[in-house]
Amino acid sequence: MYDKLREVVCQANIESAAGGLVICSWGNVSGIDRAAGVVAIKASGVSYDELSAEKMVLLDLAGNVLEGTLRPSSDTPTHLELYRNFEAIGGICHTHSLNATMWAQACREIPCFGTTHADYFYGPIPVTEAMTEKEIKSDYELNTGKVIVRRFADLDPMKMPAVLVANHGPFTWGKTAADAVEAAFVLEQTATIALGTITINPGQNQIDKALLDKHYLRKHGKNAYYGQIDDSKG
Amino acid sequence: MYDKLREVVCQANIESAAGGLVICSWGNVSGIDRAAGVVAIKASGVSYDELSAEKMVLLDLAGNVLEGTLRPSSDTPTHLELYRNFEAIGGICHTHSLNATMWAQACREIPCFGTTHADYFYGPIPVTEAMTEKEIKSDYELNTGKVIVRRFADLDPMKMPAVLVANHGPFTWGKTAADAVEAAFVLEQTATIALGTITINPGQNQIDKALLDKHYLRKHGKNAYYGQIDDSKG
Amino acid sequence: MYDKLREVVCQANIESAAGGLVICSWGNVSGIDRAAGVVAIKASGVSYDELSAEKMVLLDLAGNVLEGTLRPSSDTPTHLELYRNFEAIGGICHTHSLNATMWAQACREIPCFGTTHADYFYGPIPVTEAMTEKEIKSDYELNTGKVIVRRFADLDPMKMPAVLVANHGPFTWGKTAADAVEAAFVLEQTATIALGTITINPGQNQIDKALLDKHYLRKHGKNAYYGQIDDSKG
Amino acid sequence: MYDKLREVVCQANIESAAGGLVICSWGNVSGIDRAAGVVAIKASGVSYDELSAEKMVLLDLAGNVLEGTLRPSSDTPTHLELYRNFEAIGGICHTHSLNATMWAQACREIPCFGTTHADYFYGPIPVTEAMTEKEIKSDYELNTGKVIVRRFADLDPMKMPAVLVANHGPFTWGKTAADAVEAAFVLEQTATIALGTITINPGQNQIDKALLDKHYLRKHGKNAYYGQIDDSKG
Repeated sequence: MYDKLREVVCQANIESAAGGLVICSWGNVSGIDRAAGVVAIKASGVSYDELSAEKMVLLDLAGNVLEGTLRPSSDTPTHLELYRNFEAIGGICHTHSLNATMWAQACREIPCFGTTHADYFYGPIPVTEAMTEKEIKSDYELNTGKVIVRRFADLDPMKMPAVLVANHGPFTWGKTAADAVEAAFVLEQTATIALGTITINPGQNQIDKALLDKHYLRKHGKNAYYGQIDDSKG
Repeated sequence: MYDKLREVVCQANIESAAGGLVICSWGNVSGIDRAAGVVAIKASGVSYDELSAEKMVLLDLAGNVLEGTLRPSSDTPTHLELYRNFEAIGGICHTHSLNATMWAQACREIPCFGTTHADYFYGPIPVTEAMTEKEIKSDYELNTGKVIVRRFADLDPMKMPAVLVANHGPFTWGKTAADAVEAAFVLEQTATIALGTITINPGQNQIDKALLDKHYLRKHGKNAYYGQIDDSKG
Repeated sequence: MYDKLREVVCQANIESAAGGLVICSWGNVSGIDRAAGVVAIKASGVSYDELSAEKMVLLDLAGNVLEGTLRPSSDTPTHLELYRNFEAIGGICHTHSLNATMWAQACREIPCFGTTHADYFYGPIPVTEAMTEKEIKSDYELNTGKVIVRRFADLDPMKMPAVLVANHGPFTWGKTAADAVEAAFVLEQTATIALGTITINPGQNQIDKALLDKHYLRKHGKNAYYGQIDDSKG
Repeated sequence: MYDKLREVVCQANIESAAGGLVICSWGNVSGIDRAAGVVAIKASGVSYDELSAEKMVLLDLAGNVLEGTLRPSSDTPTHLELYRNFEAIGGICHTHSLNATMWAQACREIPCFGTTHADYFYGPIPVTEAMTEKEIKSDYELNTGKVIVRRFADLDPMKMPAVLVANHGPFTWGKTAADAVEAAFVLEQTATIALGTITINPGQNQIDKALLDKHYLRKHGKNAYYGQIDDSKG
């Protein structure tokens, strides 16, 4: 019944690894069928070589396993918390991609230094607060979701489809699981270029609001004019 | 009628991606038939896996589409402005290649630190001024061309076939679309080595004029003696 | 009789090279049959293209060659010293992988900056003291083992399966030869991310004990809950 | 008659490109038949895809072309000057490999920070003086050879098979063309690790003489004990 969801999520997991974003088994992608309230996510610790649609686990938004004999990813409670709070998103991707993780470990947001960044992310990539000892000791993965949600109190997740969890690594999302993986890939390139930018010019400022608006909005929103099909850009 | 132009420009687009210069769909190559005043350029937002000669759009220098059902690259007005002003060029390549983009985002010209650079570029790689809010808000892509042209007031585009658009990324050009892609590739290597050079020795100076002349002129101009066929080097 | 041991160790050597950890012939992996007291190790200076189970040399823990016509790796005395002192380990891997070697040459331990690190290594990656002239001049490879063992006086090698030998490079280990290679691979990623972390934020602190415990212990020890099979995680 | 020499030199050129050391056509490898006084070198500006033994040019040590219809590499006078002065060498490799070129452009010798370096190079990798305007303006390529030879007044080229030409890039050599390419490959790794080392610890010192001797001499000279066949190590 959820074969299509499983297949789509499996494919997105495979692409996250093929794109060089996932090292060892350090990553997981999920997708949600909003109408049914069903989430599909990769099973925990499974090698990417052995991935198949059957190895996706199905859960409801409360975390009850609906189908699947394997354990879901240990990060599942983080994904569920994001689905519960960011209602427009349809897929989530978590990786430890090298350059994004460097910024997450440095506990620094990625400034918007150029149009590559502005084409996808409407401002600096936010970093969460460090988690407290209490948040770490119980319900750690759920609390990881909560610190992300808290960081987005004044941010629109559809205009900023990425976050750096402090001391940890990136989560990205989008309308679909495939979009979430694309955001993870673009984030990694953005993080790489930003690291070089501050190496060349440590005092470099972020780009002006006008340039950020121009690039973000020519690709997103109702006046977008990049690409071939306007309707898909809203 | 312009099948050859389309084919050549398509092939140059493919090579820009194959050479690792283009990530996602962030790039575009064009070529011009000067006699006919016809420009071929990649369609906007098309995946490189699906590129074919039919997906090149033909335009005149005023920007009127002559053939092609797809929209041309959103950067087309930049290309056209360069063709109108740099009369010797026959092809243009735009990428967000990582290391060249780092320098563009840092708003720093790439100093000529060595012979690898001097073999292709006759001096430091220039960076444009940042664009004003007014230039950004209307006719942005055309104005991108104008800031490049302005930066070249005292430069010969055939001796300096590259520019860094501030906060954005590189444009390169040459006698043909293939030459423009080669310049983009060499620029990326040059940017990479220059970043390492200033990491090792932050106070490093540019090379002397004598060494710059020697390397640039042994490959270019009427006394060139590098390679097999002198006539092609002028 | 020890065909299986040879085969397993050969395969682990091949994987260390396939994973990009070994450049030229700069590396060696060994494994031990604890019941028999027999160690298998790669022959010295043999190309990875020509590796086969027959090119593994068998020795006892005192260093006597039991089988094999080729010389064992010149680093064999280091491996044997580790097997004699770290009784729980079953395999050892030595590489000159680029980023781990950068830290070893800088004589700096790798701070635990994030969860990628904490998932595998229970604290900063230790670096040995520099060896004395006397230690270098006679029994150098044996003494390399001794400085590692000395550095682990207060460390549990099963919780810290890696060390940086000062001015040299990494050694890693684990329950099997394959685990030792995995540790070498994870160490290289960890070293890479840590270098980026201090570039972005030179004053960055290590993560809190609570986060280190959470990540290390969710993958290791009796309360581990990552992956599919608890029993294999002890 | 010199088919073997041509073939060996062609193969070494191909390997220099396959090893990622040569970008575009920026490199050349030569070899010499000392008994005959005949040098084979790659033709100038020829693509590596089209390389074949026939595209090697044969010259005597005075630079007279003996066989071959193509022009020899423009760096030929540099190679010949090295063969005339370094009598023990049988092959030379020139590349613009990225990391070695970073150090050459920074005009900094590569300090011996570790055993990876010491296994191949008996001390820091020397950098030449910058060339004078006069040396650049006439007989530039010959003078490039002369500044290298001058730099080696007190160095043994067989113990230090590499040099960085200031503002330019590396030359390496060895007993054969293949050895020269291996030295170029090892130099590139050494340059990469050294750059990381000074990034982590800008004040890092070179290794002690005892460790340099230990590693260099266990691989080279009459008491070498690394690898399988002592006789080939002298």
